[in-house]
Amino acid sequence: MFQLSKKADYGLIALKHLAQHSDGSVSAREIASEYKIPAPLLAKVLQRLARKGLLVSQQGINGGYVLAREASKISIVDVMEAIDGPIGMTPCERGSSCEQIERCSVRDPLMKLKVKVVRILGDTSIYELAMN
Amino acid sequence: MFQLSKKADYGLIALKHLAQHSDGSVSAREIASEYKIPAPLLAKVLQRLARKGLLVSQQGINGGYVLAREASKISIVDVMEAIDGPIGMTPCERGSSCEQIERCSVRDPLMKLKVKVVRILGDTSIYELAMN
Repeated sequence: MFQLSKKADYGLIALKHLAQHSDGSVSAREIASEYKIPAPLLAKVLQRLARKGLLVSQQGINGGYVLAREASKISIVDVMEAIDGPIGMTPCERGSSCEQIERCSVRDPLMKLKVKVVRILGDTSIYELAMN
Repeated sequence: MFQLSKKADYGLIALKHLAQHSDGSVSAREIASEYKIPAPLLAKVLQRLARKGLLVSQQGINGGYVLAREASKISIVDVMEAIDGPIGMTPCERGSSCEQIERCSVRDPLMKLKVKVVRILGDTSIYELAMN
């Protein structure tokens, strides 16, 4: 187990699409149809990304979503955290109760590792995703 | 979501303990008691690590487990994969069905990222865990 949620995957697909179509807004329905993503689920994901400040929702006949800032300034970590909350490698970091919170011998080294992993994901932007 | 399973955490704690007590074998019960890990669960984790070739089970009155090879030659990835199977960042990599397997736009870049993440985890050994 060490994976992105399906919602985070959908979010990345949508942001990549918006980065590649930055000349106008794109509706959730268009993206859902293009990638065969269940439309109600994608709508929720995009609303969440808008609420978290990564997307802007434009109203009107040609309404839809645009990126809230340059694709190069939105990292994969931004998207993962917007959708699933802070990245934590260990159950305790994610707020799960753990009977050995007082004496755990691996938490600190694992947190240091997590910092390295987050750096890699944070160094990768939607722009790079869109170029690949 | 981006976390080790609790079983993998227990496995790391146990291997670190064995690396720090490499002058003899240690029983599952001793480790469970020291770290307040539910004993039946830890027993299963250690049996699995033995089956996967990371631990050796020694029989007898002073029986217990020892590392199957030097702690510096067992990486965090070895333990994670022994317990939870191959690391996959995306649901499809973990064998989940996905309706867009044919047209997914983020799978390849995410696989490349995963290789980098696995390299970091693979570069960290139980020996380093035991020194921290």
